[in-house]
Amino acid sequence: MTNWKEIDQNVRAWIKEAGSKIRDSFQTELNIKTKSNRNDLVTNMDEATERLFIEKIRTTYKDHKIMGEEGFGDELLDLDGVTWILDPIDGTMNFVHQQRNFAISIGVYEDSVGVLGYIYDVVHDELYHAHRGHGAYMNDVKLPDLNEVEVEDSVIALNAQWVTSNRRIDPKILSPLVQKVRGTRSYGSAAIEMAYIAAGRLDAYLSMRLAPWDFAAGKILIEEVGGIVTDLDGNELDPLNKSSLFVAKPRLHQTIMTDYLKR
Amino acid sequence: MTNWKEIDQNVRAWIKEAGSKIRDSFQTELNIKTKSNRNDLVTNMDEATERLFIEKIRTTYKDHKIMGEEGFGDELLDLDGVTWILDPIDGTMNFVHQQRNFAISIGVYEDSVGVLGYIYDVVHDELYHAHRGHGAYMNDVKLPDLNEVEVEDSVIALNAQWVTSNRRIDPKILSPLVQKVRGTRSYGSAAIEMAYIAAGRLDAYLSMRLAPWDFAAGKILIEEVGGIVTDLDGNELDPLNKSSLFVAKPRLHQTIMTDYLKR
Repeated sequence: MTNWKEIDQNVRAWIKEAGSKIRDSFQTELNIKTKSNRNDLVTNMDEATERLFIEKIRTTYKDHKIMGEEGFGDELLDLDGVTWILDPIDGTMNFVHQQRNFAISIGVYEDSVGVLGYIYDVVHDELYHAHRGHGAYMNDVKLPDLNEVEVEDSVIALNAQWVTSNRRIDPKILSPLVQKVRGTRSYGSAAIEMAYIAAGRLDAYLSMRLAPWDFAAGKILIEEVGGIVTDLDGNELDPLNKSSLFVAKPRLHQTIMTDYLKR
Repeated sequence: MTNWKEIDQNVRAWIKEAGSKIRDSFQTELNIKTKSNRNDLVTNMDEATERLFIEKIRTTYKDHKIMGEEGFGDELLDLDGVTWILDPIDGTMNFVHQQRNFAISIGVYEDSVGVLGYIYDVVHDELYHAHRGHGAYMNDVKLPDLNEVEVEDSVIALNAQWVTSNRRIDPKILSPLVQKVRGTRSYGSAAIEMAYIAAGRLDAYLSMRLAPWDFAAGKILIEEVGGIVTDLDGNELDPLNKSSLFVAKPRLHQTIMTDYLKR
Protein backbone atom coordinates (compact mmCIF):
# COMPACT_ATOMS: atom_id res chain seq x y z
CA MET A 1 0.00 0.00 0.00
CA THR A 2 1.21 3.48 -0.83
CA ASN A 3 2.58 5.34 2.19
CA TRP A 4 1.09 8.77 1.49
CA LYS A 5 2.29 10.23 4.77
CA GLU A 6 5.89 9.46 3.88
CA ILE A 7 5.45 10.78 0.36
CA ASP A 8 3.97 13.98 1.80
CA GLN A 9 6.97 14.48 4.08
CA ASN A 10 9.39 13.89 1.21
CA VAL A 11 7.63 16.21 -1.23
CA ARG A 12 7.64 19.04 1.28
CA ALA A 13 11.35 18.65 1.97
CA TRP A 14 12.17 18.49 -1.75
CA ILE A 15 10.00 21.49 -2.57
CA LYS A 16 11.67 23.59 0.12
CA GLU A 17 15.11 22.55 -1.15
CA ALA A 18 14.21 23.38 -4.76
CA GLY A 19 12.63 26.70 -3.75
CA SER A 20 15.71 27.67 -1.82
CA LYS A 21 17.94 26.88 -4.82
CA ILE A 22 15.72 28.96 -7.09
CA ARG A 23 15.83 31.92 -4.71
CA ASP A 24 19.60 31.63 -4.33
CA SER A 25 19.99 31.55 -8.10
CA PHE A 26 18.47 34.96 -8.72
CA GLN A 27 21.77 36.78 -8.48
CA THR A 28 23.48 34.35 -10.86
CA GLU A 29 20.58 34.47 -13.25
CA LEU A 30 20.58 38.22 -13.40
CA ASN A 31 24.22 38.01 -14.42
CA ILE A 32 23.56 35.36 -17.03
CA LYS A 33 20.70 37.40 -18.40
CA THR A 34 23.07 40.04 -19.72
CA LYS A 35 25.17 37.43 -21.56
CA SER A 36 22.48 35.24 -23.04
CA ASN A 37 18.88 35.62 -24.05
CA ARG A 38 16.12 35.38 -21.53
CA ASN A 39 14.49 32.29 -23.01
CA ASP A 40 17.64 30.15 -22.80
CA LEU A 41 18.06 31.20 -19.22
CA VAL A 42 14.64 30.08 -18.11
CA THR A 43 14.97 26.72 -19.78
CA ASN A 44 18.15 26.12 -17.79
CA MET A 45 16.51 26.86 -14.47
CA ASP A 46 13.34 24.93 -15.33
CA GLU A 47 15.46 21.97 -16.34
CA ALA A 48 17.70 22.04 -13.28
CA THR A 49 14.67 22.08 -10.99
CA GLU A 50 12.91 19.27 -12.83
CA ARG A 51 16.09 17.16 -12.72
CA LEU A 52 16.34 17.72 -8.96
CA PHE A 53 12.85 16.32 -8.41
CA ILE A 54 13.25 13.44 -10.85
CA GLU A 55 16.50 12.30 -9.28
CA LYS A 56 14.91 12.26 -5.83
CA ILE A 57 11.75 10.49 -6.98
CA ARG A 58 13.66 7.85 -8.95
CA THR A 59 15.97 7.15 -6.02
CA THR A 60 13.18 6.91 -3.45
CA TYR A 61 10.27 5.44 -5.41
CA LYS A 62 11.61 3.15 -8.12
CA ASP A 63 8.16 1.97 -9.23
CA HIS A 64 6.59 5.44 -9.54
CA LYS A 65 6.13 7.10 -12.94
CA ILE A 66 6.90 10.75 -13.71
CA MET A 67 5.41 13.26 -16.15
CA GLY A 68 7.39 16.51 -16.27
CA GLU A 69 7.02 19.67 -18.33
CA GLU A 70 10.65 19.66 -19.41
CA GLY A 71 10.48 16.12 -20.75
CA PHE A 72 12.93 14.33 -18.43
CA GLY A 73 10.15 12.08 -17.13
CA ASP A 74 8.62 8.99 -18.70
CA GLU A 75 6.58 8.58 -21.87
CA LEU A 76 3.20 7.76 -20.37
CA LEU A 77 0.33 5.91 -22.00
CA ASP A 78 -1.74 5.61 -18.84
CA LEU A 79 -1.78 6.72 -15.19
CA ASP A 80 -1.95 3.26 -13.64
CA GLY A 81 -0.02 3.03 -10.37
CA VAL A 82 1.51 6.15 -8.81
CA THR A 83 2.43 9.02 -11.16
CA TRP A 84 4.10 12.31 -10.31
CA ILE A 85 3.01 15.22 -12.51
CA LEU A 86 5.57 18.04 -12.25
CA ASP A 87 5.86 21.64 -13.30
CA PRO A 88 9.21 22.82 -11.92
CA ILE A 89 8.43 26.48 -12.67
CA ASP A 90 4.85 27.34 -13.55
CA GLY A 91 4.72 30.93 -14.77
CA THR A 92 8.00 30.95 -16.67
CA MET A 93 7.40 34.38 -18.15
CA ASN A 94 6.93 35.84 -14.66
CA PHE A 95 10.08 34.06 -13.52
CA VAL A 96 12.12 35.79 -16.24
CA HIS A 97 10.48 39.21 -16.16
CA GLN A 98 9.64 39.53 -12.49
CA GLN A 99 11.60 36.97 -10.47
CA ARG A 100 8.30 36.36 -8.67
CA ASN A 101 4.74 35.16 -9.21
CA PHE A 102 5.80 31.68 -10.33
CA ALA A 103 5.30 28.37 -8.54
CA ILE A 104 6.50 24.81 -8.25
CA SER A 105 3.49 22.57 -8.96
CA ILE A 106 3.40 18.87 -8.11
CA GLY A 107 0.46 16.47 -8.28
CA VAL A 108 0.79 12.85 -7.17
CA TYR A 109 -1.83 10.64 -8.79
CA GLU A 110 -2.76 7.00 -8.19
CA ASP A 111 -4.63 5.15 -10.92
CA SER A 112 -5.60 8.49 -12.56
CA VAL A 113 -6.94 10.00 -9.31
CA GLY A 114 -5.18 12.98 -7.73
CA VAL A 115 -4.17 12.20 -4.14
CA LEU A 116 -1.57 14.81 -3.14
CA GLY A 117 -1.27 18.30 -4.60
CA TYR A 118 1.36 21.01 -3.91
CA ILE A 119 1.68 24.55 -5.24
CA TYR A 120 4.63 26.47 -3.83
CA ASP A 121 4.77 30.22 -4.44
CA VAL A 122 8.55 30.33 -4.12
CA VAL A 123 9.22 34.03 -3.55
CA HIS A 124 6.32 34.63 -1.17
CA ASP A 125 7.15 31.34 0.62
CA GLU A 126 3.55 30.14 0.52
CA LEU A 127 2.95 26.41 0.25
CA TYR A 128 -0.55 25.36 -0.71
CA HIS A 129 -1.19 21.66 -0.35
CA ALA A 130 -4.05 19.20 -0.36
CA HIS A 131 -4.53 15.53 0.42
CA ARG A 132 -7.61 14.06 -1.19
CA GLY A 133 -10.27 13.58 1.48
CA HIS A 134 -8.22 15.41 4.12
CA GLY A 135 -8.60 19.06 3.11
CA ALA A 136 -6.53 21.84 1.56
CA TYR A 137 -4.09 24.11 3.38
CA MET A 138 -1.96 27.20 2.96
CA ASN A 139 1.21 27.04 5.07
CA ASP A 140 -0.58 24.36 7.12
CA VAL A 141 -3.61 26.53 7.88
CA LYS A 142 -6.75 24.76 6.67
CA LEU A 143 -8.61 26.52 3.87
CA PRO A 144 -12.37 26.76 4.48
CA ASP A 145 -14.96 25.49 2.01
CA LEU A 146 -15.70 28.01 -0.73
CA ASN A 147 -18.61 30.42 -0.30
CA GLU A 148 -20.99 30.98 -3.17
CA VAL A 149 -21.01 34.33 -4.98
CA GLU A 150 -23.18 35.96 -7.65
CA VAL A 151 -21.63 36.66 -11.06
CA GLU A 152 -21.88 40.42 -10.51
CA ASP A 153 -20.02 40.17 -7.17
CA SER A 154 -17.31 37.86 -8.50
CA VAL A 155 -13.65 38.45 -9.30
CA ILE A 156 -12.43 36.16 -12.05
CA ALA A 157 -9.05 35.39 -13.57
CA LEU A 158 -9.01 35.64 -17.33
CA ASN A 159 -6.24 36.76 -19.63
CA ALA A 160 -7.12 39.71 -21.88
CA GLN A 161 -6.03 37.71 -24.94
CA TRP A 162 -9.17 35.52 -24.68
CA VAL A 163 -11.42 38.51 -25.34
CA THR A 164 -9.46 39.60 -28.43
CA SER A 165 -9.14 37.61 -31.66
CA ASN A 166 -7.27 34.37 -30.97
CA ARG A 167 -7.06 30.82 -32.25
CA ARG A 168 -8.89 29.21 -29.32
CA ILE A 169 -12.17 30.99 -28.59
CA ASP A 170 -14.47 33.56 -30.15
CA PRO A 171 -13.87 36.77 -28.15
CA LYS A 172 -17.64 37.39 -28.15
CA ILE A 173 -18.19 34.44 -25.81
CA LEU A 174 -16.33 35.75 -22.75
CA SER A 175 -16.64 39.52 -23.32
CA PRO A 176 -20.13 39.71 -21.74
CA LEU A 177 -18.75 37.89 -18.69
CA VAL A 178 -15.89 40.39 -18.35
CA GLN A 179 -18.47 43.19 -18.49
CA LYS A 180 -20.72 41.58 -15.88
CA VAL A 181 -18.26 40.58 -13.13
CA ARG A 182 -16.99 42.91 -10.40
CA GLY A 183 -13.41 42.53 -11.60
CA THR A 184 -10.98 40.56 -13.74
CA ARG A 185 -7.40 39.69 -12.88
CA SER A 186 -4.54 37.94 -14.65
CA TYR A 187 -1.44 36.69 -12.84
CA GLY A 188 0.27 34.61 -15.53
CA SER A 189 0.63 31.37 -13.56
CA ALA A 190 -2.13 28.76 -13.77
CA ALA A 191 -0.87 27.15 -10.57
CA ILE A 192 -1.05 30.41 -8.62
CA GLU A 193 -4.42 31.23 -10.13
CA MET A 194 -5.76 27.83 -9.04
CA ALA A 195 -4.26 28.28 -5.56
CA TYR A 196 -6.07 31.64 -5.37
CA ILE A 197 -9.34 29.90 -6.29
CA ALA A 198 -8.77 27.35 -3.52
CA ALA A 199 -8.02 30.15 -1.06
CA GLY A 200 -11.23 32.02 -2.03
CA ARG A 201 -9.33 35.02 -3.44
CA LEU A 202 -10.70 34.49 -6.94
CA ASP A 203 -14.12 33.09 -7.78
CA ALA A 204 -13.47 31.61 -11.23
CA TYR A 205 -10.56 31.06 -13.62
CA LEU A 206 -10.75 30.27 -17.31
CA SER A 207 -7.90 29.37 -19.62
CA MET A 208 -7.96 28.05 -23.16
CA ARG A 209 -5.06 25.64 -23.22
CA LEU A 210 -3.16 24.11 -20.36
CA ALA A 211 -1.08 20.98 -19.90
CA PRO A 212 -1.55 18.35 -17.18
CA TRP A 213 1.41 19.73 -15.20
CA ASP A 214 -0.32 23.15 -15.11
CA PHE A 215 -3.49 21.84 -13.45
CA ALA A 216 -2.58 18.50 -11.79
CA ALA A 217 -1.97 19.95 -8.33
CA GLY A 218 -4.53 22.76 -8.50
CA LYS A 219 -7.34 20.35 -9.32
CA ILE A 220 -6.81 18.48 -6.04
CA LEU A 221 -6.65 21.71 -4.02
CA ILE A 222 -9.81 23.16 -5.52
CA GLU A 223 -11.84 19.98 -5.22
CA GLU A 224 -10.91 19.68 -1.54
CA VAL A 225 -12.64 23.02 -0.79
CA GLY A 226 -15.70 22.22 -2.89
CA GLY A 227 -14.81 23.94 -6.17
CA ILE A 228 -15.57 22.55 -9.62
CA VAL A 229 -12.78 21.72 -12.08
CA THR A 230 -13.64 20.97 -15.72
CA ASP A 231 -12.69 21.96 -19.24
CA LEU A 232 -14.70 24.65 -21.06
CA ASP A 233 -17.24 22.07 -22.19
CA GLY A 234 -17.88 20.98 -18.62
CA ASN A 235 -16.02 17.68 -19.06
CA GLU A 236 -13.75 16.14 -16.43
CA LEU A 237 -10.08 16.96 -17.11
CA ASP A 238 -7.88 14.24 -18.53
CA PRO A 239 -4.56 14.34 -16.64
CA LEU A 240 -2.81 12.72 -19.63
CA ASN A 241 -3.71 15.44 -22.13
CA LYS A 242 -3.79 19.18 -22.75
CA SER A 243 -7.14 20.88 -22.53
CA SER A 244 -8.98 24.08 -21.73
CA LEU A 245 -9.71 24.78 -18.05
CA PHE A 246 -12.68 26.24 -16.22
CA VAL A 247 -12.63 26.24 -12.42
CA ALA A 248 -15.12 28.03 -10.17
CA LYS A 249 -17.30 27.92 -7.11
CA PRO A 250 -20.09 25.39 -7.78
CA ARG A 251 -23.11 27.61 -8.46
CA LEU A 252 -20.98 30.17 -10.30
CA HIS A 253 -19.59 27.35 -12.47
CA GLN A 254 -23.14 26.33 -13.38
CA THR A 255 -24.23 29.92 -14.11
CA ILE A 256 -21.23 30.76 -16.29
CA MET A 257 -21.60 27.45 -18.13
CA THR A 258 -25.28 28.07 -18.86
CA ASP A 259 -25.39 31.83 -19.43
CA TYR A 260 -21.99 32.56 -21.04
CA LEU A 261 -20.28 29.43 -22.33
CA LYS A 262 -23.73 28.07 -23.33
CA ARG A 263 -22.63 24.48 -23.35
CA MET B 1 12.56 75.63 3.33
CA THR B 2 10.84 72.28 3.37
CA ASN B 3 12.71 69.66 5.38
CA TRP B 4 12.25 66.68 3.04
CA LYS B 5 14.49 64.41 5.09
CA GLU B 6 12.29 64.86 8.13
CA ILE B 7 9.13 64.37 6.09
CA ASP B 8 10.61 61.17 4.65
CA GLN B 9 11.33 59.79 8.12
CA ASN B 10 7.83 60.65 9.31
CA VAL B 11 6.05 59.14 6.30
CA ARG B 12 7.93 55.88 6.67
CA ALA B 13 7.04 55.59 10.35
CA TRP B 14 3.39 56.44 9.69
CA ILE B 15 3.13 53.98 6.78
CA LYS B 16 4.57 51.17 8.89
CA GLU B 17 2.14 51.97 11.70
CA ALA B 18 -0.83 52.05 9.33
CA GLY B 19 0.29 48.84 7.60
CA SER B 20 0.61 47.09 10.91
CA LYS B 21 -2.91 48.17 11.92
CA ILE B 22 -4.31 46.94 8.62
CA ARG B 23 -2.62 43.56 9.00
CA ASP B 24 -3.81 43.24 12.61
CA SER B 25 -7.34 44.06 11.51
CA PHE B 26 -7.75 41.10 9.18
CA GLN B 27 -9.18 38.83 11.86
CA THR B 28 -11.66 41.47 13.00
CA GLU B 29 -12.60 42.28 9.44
CA LEU B 30 -13.25 38.67 8.62
CA ASN B 31 -15.65 38.59 11.56
CA ILE B 32 -17.35 41.80 10.53
CA LYS B 33 -17.69 40.48 7.01
CA THR B 34 -20.22 37.88 8.10
CA LYS B 35 -22.41 40.52 9.81
CA SER B 36 -22.30 43.30 7.25
CA ASN B 37 -21.77 43.63 3.54
CA ARG B 38 -18.33 43.70 2.06
CA ASN B 39 -18.54 47.21 0.67
CA ASP B 40 -19.37 48.82 4.03
CA LEU B 41 -16.47 47.00 5.58
CA VAL B 42 -13.92 48.34 3.18
CA THR B 43 -15.10 51.87 3.54
CA ASN B 44 -14.54 51.59 7.27
CA MET B 45 -10.96 50.42 6.92
CA ASP B 46 -10.17 52.90 4.14
CA GLU B 47 -11.56 55.69 6.28
CA ALA B 48 -9.75 54.67 9.44
CA THR B 49 -6.44 54.56 7.59
CA GLU B 50 -6.97 57.92 5.90
CA ARG B 51 -7.93 59.49 9.24
CA LEU B 52 -4.73 58.13 10.81
CA PHE B 53 -2.58 59.85 8.18
CA ILE B 54 -4.55 63.08 8.20
CA GLU B 55 -4.35 63.40 11.97
CA LYS B 56 -0.58 62.94 11.88
CA ILE B 57 -0.04 65.32 8.99
CA ARG B 58 -2.27 68.04 10.49
CA THR B 59 -0.50 67.78 13.86
CA THR B 60 2.99 67.86 12.40
CA TYR B 61 2.64 70.10 9.34
CA LYS B 62 -0.03 72.69 9.98
CA ASP B 63 0.55 74.54 6.70
CA HIS B 64 0.47 71.46 4.42
CA LYS B 65 -2.59 70.62 2.34
CA ILE B 66 -4.12 67.15 1.97
CA MET B 67 -6.02 65.43 -0.84
CA GLY B 68 -7.38 62.05 0.20
CA GLU B 69 -9.51 59.46 -1.60
CA GLU B 70 -12.00 59.20 1.25
CA GLY B 71 -12.64 62.92 1.33
CA PHE B 72 -11.34 63.84 4.79
CA GLY B 73 -8.71 66.13 3.30
CA ASP B 74 -9.05 69.64 1.94
CA GLU B 75 -10.99 70.99 -1.02
CA LEU B 76 -8.12 71.92 -3.30
CA LEU B 77 -8.13 74.45 -6.11
CA ASP B 78 -4.39 74.35 -6.70
CA LEU B 79 -1.24 72.53 -5.56
CA ASP B 80 0.68 75.58 -4.36
CA GLY B 81 2.84 74.85 -1.33
CA VAL B 82 3.17 71.31 0.00
CA THR B 83 0.29 68.91 -0.69
CA TRP B 84 -0.08 65.31 0.44
CA ILE B 85 -1.99 63.10 -2.00
CA LEU B 86 -3.20 59.97 -0.21
CA ASP B 87 -4.78 56.68 -1.11
CA PRO B 88 -5.09 54.80 2.19
CA ILE B 89 -5.93 51.51 0.43
CA ASP B 90 -5.33 51.34 -3.30
CA GLY B 91 -6.88 48.14 -4.65
CA THR B 92 -9.94 48.08 -2.43
CA MET B 93 -11.49 45.14 -4.29
CA ASN B 94 -8.36 43.08 -3.66
CA PHE B 95 -8.40 44.14 -0.03
CA VAL B 96 -11.94 42.76 0.38
CA HIS B 97 -11.66 39.66 -1.78
CA GLN B 98 -8.06 38.69 -1.17
CA GLN B 99 -6.71 40.46 1.91
CA ARG B 100 -3.61 41.11 -0.23
CA ASN B 101 -2.46 42.88 -3.40
CA PHE B 102 -3.43 46.32 -2.13
CA ALA B 103 -1.16 49.24 -1.19
CA ILE B 104 -0.92 52.46 0.75
CA SER B 105 0.00 55.17 -1.75
CA ILE B 106 1.30 58.59 -0.73
CA GLY B 107 2.70 61.35 -2.91
CA VAL B 108 4.05 64.58 -1.44
CA TYR B 109 3.99 67.42 -3.95
CA GLU B 110 5.42 70.94 -3.79
CA ASP B 111 3.99 73.55 -6.14
CA SER B 112 2.47 70.81 -8.35
CA VAL B 113 5.74 68.85 -8.61
CA GLY B 114 6.03 65.40 -7.04
CA VAL B 115 8.94 65.25 -4.58
CA LEU B 116 8.39 62.17 -2.40
CA GLY B 117 6.47 59.05 -3.43
CA TYR B 118 5.64 55.93 -1.39
CA ILE B 119 3.82 52.73 -2.35
CA TYR B 120 3.59 50.18 0.42
CA ASP B 121 2.48 46.66 -0.47
CA VAL B 122 1.17 45.97 3.01
CA VAL B 123 0.90 42.17 3.05
CA HIS B 124 4.17 41.49 1.24
CA ASP B 125 5.87 44.17 3.38
CA GLU B 126 7.46 45.85 0.35
CA LEU B 127 7.98 49.60 0.50
CA TYR B 128 8.72 51.30 -2.79
CA HIS B 129 9.79 54.90 -2.43
CA ALA B 130 11.33 57.67 -4.48
CA HIS B 131 12.73 61.11 -3.84
CA ARG B 132 12.76 63.30 -6.92
CA GLY B 133 16.33 63.55 -8.17
CA HIS B 134 17.61 60.96 -5.69
CA GLY B 135 16.36 57.69 -7.18
CA ALA B 136 13.74 55.05 -6.52
CA TYR B 137 14.04 52.14 -4.11
CA MET B 138 12.35 48.93 -3.02
CA ASN B 139 12.93 48.21 0.67
CA ASP B 140 15.87 50.61 0.44
CA VAL B 141 17.56 48.77 -2.45
CA LYS B 142 18.02 51.16 -5.36
CA LEU B 143 16.03 50.31 -8.48
CA PRO B 144 18.13 50.47 -11.67
CA ASP B 145 17.19 52.57 -14.68
CA LEU B 146 14.69 50.81 -16.93
CA ASN B 147 15.97 48.79 -19.89
CA GLU B 148 14.33 49.17 -23.26
CA VAL B 149 12.26 46.32 -24.68
CA GLU B 150 10.53 45.59 -28.01
CA VAL B 151 6.72 45.43 -28.08
CA GLU B 152 6.81 41.70 -28.87
CA ASP B 153 9.07 40.99 -25.87
CA SER B 154 7.06 43.12 -23.46
CA VAL B 155 4.73 42.22 -20.62
CA ILE B 156 2.04 44.84 -20.11
CA ALA B 157 -0.62 45.45 -17.48
CA LEU B 158 -4.05 46.00 -18.97
CA ASN B 159 -7.41 45.01 -17.61
CA ALA B 160 -9.48 42.76 -19.88
CA GLN B 161 -12.40 45.18 -19.68
CA TRP B 162 -10.55 47.67 -21.92
CA VAL B 163 -10.61 45.22 -24.83
CA THR B 164 -14.35 44.56 -24.50
CA SER B 165 -17.13 47.13 -25.07
CA ASN B 166 -16.85 49.84 -22.42
CA ARG B 167 -17.59 53.52 -21.97
CA ARG B 168 -13.98 54.71 -22.15
CA ILE B 169 -12.20 53.29 -25.18
CA ASP B 170 -12.99 51.44 -28.40
CA PRO B 171 -11.87 47.84 -27.75
CA LYS B 172 -10.39 47.74 -31.26
CA ILE B 173 -7.65 50.18 -30.23
CA LEU B 174 -5.86 48.03 -27.66
CA SER B 175 -6.75 44.53 -28.95
CA PRO B 176 -3.90 44.49 -31.50
CA LEU B 177 -1.48 45.42 -28.70
CA VAL B 178 -2.72 42.53 -26.54
CA GLN B 179 -2.16 40.22 -29.50
CA LYS B 180 1.36 41.53 -30.16
CA VAL B 181 2.92 41.59 -26.68
CA ARG B 182 4.53 38.60 -24.98
CA GLY B 183 2.00 38.73 -22.15
CA THR B 184 -0.66 40.75 -20.38
CA ARG B 185 -1.29 40.92 -16.66
CA SER B 186 -3.83 42.59 -14.40
CA TYR B 187 -3.33 43.01 -10.66
CA GLY B 188 -6.17 45.35 -9.72
CA SER B 189 -4.12 48.03 -7.96
CA ALA B 190 -2.81 50.97 -9.96
CA ALA B 191 -0.24 51.69 -7.25
CA ILE B 192 1.14 48.14 -7.34
CA GLU B 193 1.09 48.12 -11.13
CA MET B 194 3.09 51.38 -11.18
CA ALA B 195 5.52 50.01 -8.60
CA TYR B 196 6.00 46.96 -10.85
CA ILE B 197 6.78 49.27 -13.77
CA ALA B 198 9.37 51.08 -11.66
CA ALA B 199 10.90 47.74 -10.62
CA GLY B 200 11.10 46.59 -14.27
CA ARG B 201 8.65 43.72 -13.76
CA LEU B 202 6.14 45.16 -16.21
CA ASP B 203 7.01 47.17 -19.31
CA ALA B 204 3.83 49.22 -19.76
CA TYR B 205 0.55 49.87 -17.96
CA LEU B 206 -2.57 51.43 -19.39
CA SER B 207 -5.72 52.40 -17.55
CA MET B 208 -8.68 54.43 -18.70
CA ARG B 209 -9.63 56.38 -15.59
CA LEU B 210 -7.65 57.00 -12.45
CA ALA B 211 -7.69 59.63 -9.75
CA PRO B 212 -4.71 61.68 -8.56
CA TRP B 213 -4.35 59.52 -5.43
CA ASP B 214 -4.00 56.44 -7.66
CA PHE B 215 -1.02 57.79 -9.58
CA ALA B 216 0.53 60.55 -7.44
CA ALA B 217 3.21 58.33 -5.85
CA GLY B 218 3.74 55.98 -8.81
CA LYS B 219 4.51 58.88 -11.14
CA ILE B 220 7.47 59.93 -9.00
CA LEU B 221 8.80 56.36 -8.75
CA ILE B 222 8.57 55.70 -12.48
CA GLU B 223 10.12 59.00 -13.52
CA GLU B 224 13.08 58.38 -11.19
CA VAL B 225 14.03 55.24 -13.16
CA GLY B 226 13.54 56.86 -16.54
CA GLY B 227 9.98 55.76 -17.38
CA ILE B 228 7.39 57.93 -19.11
CA VAL B 229 4.13 58.89 -17.38
CA THR B 230 1.33 60.49 -19.41
CA ASP B 231 -2.36 60.13 -20.13
CA LEU B 232 -3.52 58.19 -23.20
CA ASP B 233 -3.13 61.26 -25.38
CA GLY B 234 0.49 61.67 -24.34
CA ASN B 235 -0.22 64.68 -22.14
CA GLU B 236 1.39 65.34 -18.78
CA LEU B 237 -0.87 64.18 -15.92
CA ASP B 238 -2.70 66.80 -13.90
CA PRO B 239 -2.40 65.86 -10.21
CA LEU B 240 -5.58 67.81 -9.47
CA ASN B 241 -7.84 65.82 -11.81
CA LYS B 242 -8.88 62.35 -12.91
CA SER B 243 -7.50 61.11 -16.19
CA SER B 244 -6.44 58.09 -18.21
CA LEU B 245 -2.93 56.75 -17.59
CA PHE B 246 -0.23 55.36 -19.85
CA VAL B 247 3.16 54.55 -18.34
CA ALA B 248 5.97 52.69 -20.09
CA LYS B 249 9.66 52.45 -20.84
CA PRO B 250 10.57 55.41 -23.06
CA ARG B 251 10.91 53.81 -26.51
CA LEU B 252 8.01 51.44 -25.83
CA HIS B 253 5.88 54.44 -24.84
CA GLN B 254 6.67 56.09 -28.16
CA THR B 255 5.99 52.92 -30.18
CA ILE B 256 2.67 52.16 -28.50
CA MET B 257 1.62 55.80 -28.85
CA THR B 258 2.43 55.85 -32.57
CA ASP B 259 1.44 52.34 -33.68
CA TYR B 260 -1.52 51.52 -31.41
CA LEU B 261 -2.96 54.59 -29.72
CA LYS B 262 -2.26 56.59 -32.91
CA ARG B 263 -2.25 59.91 -31.15
